[in-house]
Amino acid sequence: MNATPPLDRIRIVLSHPSHPGNIGAAARAMKTMGLARLYLVKPKTFPDPQAVAMATGADDVLAQARVCASLAEALAGTVAATALTGRRRELATEPSWARDAAADLVATTAAGEVALVFGNETAGLSNQELAQCKNWALIPTSAAYRSLNLAQAVQILCYELRLAAVDVGAPPKVNDGGTPASHEEVEALLSHLERAAVGSGFLDPARPKRLMPRLRRMFSRAGLEREEVAILRGMLSSWEK
Amino acid sequence: MNATPPLDRIRIVLSHPSHPGNIGAAARAMKTMGLARLYLVKPKTFPDPQAVAMATGADDVLAQARVCASLAEALAGTVAATALTGRRRELATEPSWARDAAADLVATTAAGEVALVFGNETAGLSNQELAQCKNWALIPTSAAYRSLNLAQAVQILCYELRLAAVDVGAPPKVNDGGTPASHEEVEALLSHLERAAVGSGFLDPARPKRLMPRLRRMFSRAGLEREEVAILRGMLSSWEK
Repeated sequence: MNATPPLDRIRIVLSHPSHPGNIGAAARAMKTMGLARLYLVKPKTFPDPQAVAMATGADDVLAQARVCASLAEALAGTVAATALTGRRRELATEPSWARDAAADLVATTAAGEVALVFGNETAGLSNQELAQCKNWALIPTSAAYRSLNLAQAVQILCYELRLAAVDVGAPPKVNDGGTPASHEEVEALLSHLERAAVGSGFLDPARPKRLMPRLRRMFSRAGLEREEVAILRGMLSSWEK
Repeated sequence: MNATPPLDRIRIVLSHPSHPGNIGAAARAMKTMGLARLYLVKPKTFPDPQAVAMATGADDVLAQARVCASLAEALAGTVAATALTGRRRELATEPSWARDAAADLVATTAAGEVALVFGNETAGLSNQELAQCKNWALIPTSAAYRSLNLAQAVQILCYELRLAAVDVGAPPKVNDGGTPASHEEVEALLSHLERAAVGSGFLDPARPKRLMPRLRRMFSRAGLEREEVAILRGMLSSWEK
């Protein structure tokens, strides 16, 4: 049991979803974040071509989805269930924000399987269903408009679950091109630049103001590469002629 | 200029979006997170009833969307632009994860307007468009399946932008019911419980093991309320008869 990665122990439960398109979009959302265990409690229409269309490359998640007759059936075998709801209801505990709820759920996977439960698009979860959930999560939204699309709510939670469960590390580096310019190369460029600016009459050595320090700052932020220094110095030389 | 809230200074730019449904879903995603400034660069089909349908309550965001002939037009007046792309490209800088990129973008709103740029659903952003962006953001995804739906990517970023820009505070408390039981009330319950368990023969006072400490722990986690103590003690009394 210990070898099962946390994300594999998380069930995404959609209770009474009305729109098959949302089921498909939710499956896709899950797959992008490494989740695969979709449970559908009395979906209005499923299977459905709209679900397949919205799932795009995640039809495997759809194909493996478990259709259940009740929430109790979907939760059987879990040790914790967190309900996602935008509405205020009387629940066992106070709500947590999505990020914290996701972290808690991932931590609980050490003890067994867990579930994240989403309700119907308009009605949400029934009181009876909410009563079966131990915890409650809220996604922070604008007070002016709280109505997240179901699949969007699934996407946000799956994103938070992934970040809680997996060490994503540093983003992949892609600029494998230039070699950084050395300290001497940069100083030589700056001297050259100053010489050229004086030579053209732009910079008055008697009144240098802060021109060179400003450009020095700018080049520092840029993090010059060797190739770039060579280009700039070549340009300067061409103007000095 | 200082009075404009950060979220109002952020432009969400969709470049060459193919599917009007995605435009509508993106508008809804923006509105749930308090963003309103949508820019569309050469959308394939717009306006479109599918956009309105997917926007649900966010038609005001759609109605105010600025349609532009080029990315340059959409970026005019901004001081920074961050591109969202899943593909590796040669860009000015190394990519950041979405959370960090969102925080940076919000911080930059102190200096002026900023943009978050999303490309076409399949082709992403062109090299020429990427070249116009200063920064680059990646959403961490499963290696097995990186393909986020466009509106889902917008939703995740808008969520991160909101969290970076707004102090969401603590989640709203809703259990305004019970008064916590006092220390003495809890101790009295535990004594009563122990008495009743001894009285029925369940608990042997000569060999108590860890029964009462375990139940004490459980009740501590539950955070008993007065009303709950009263119910439990009433039940115990009824069984002691």
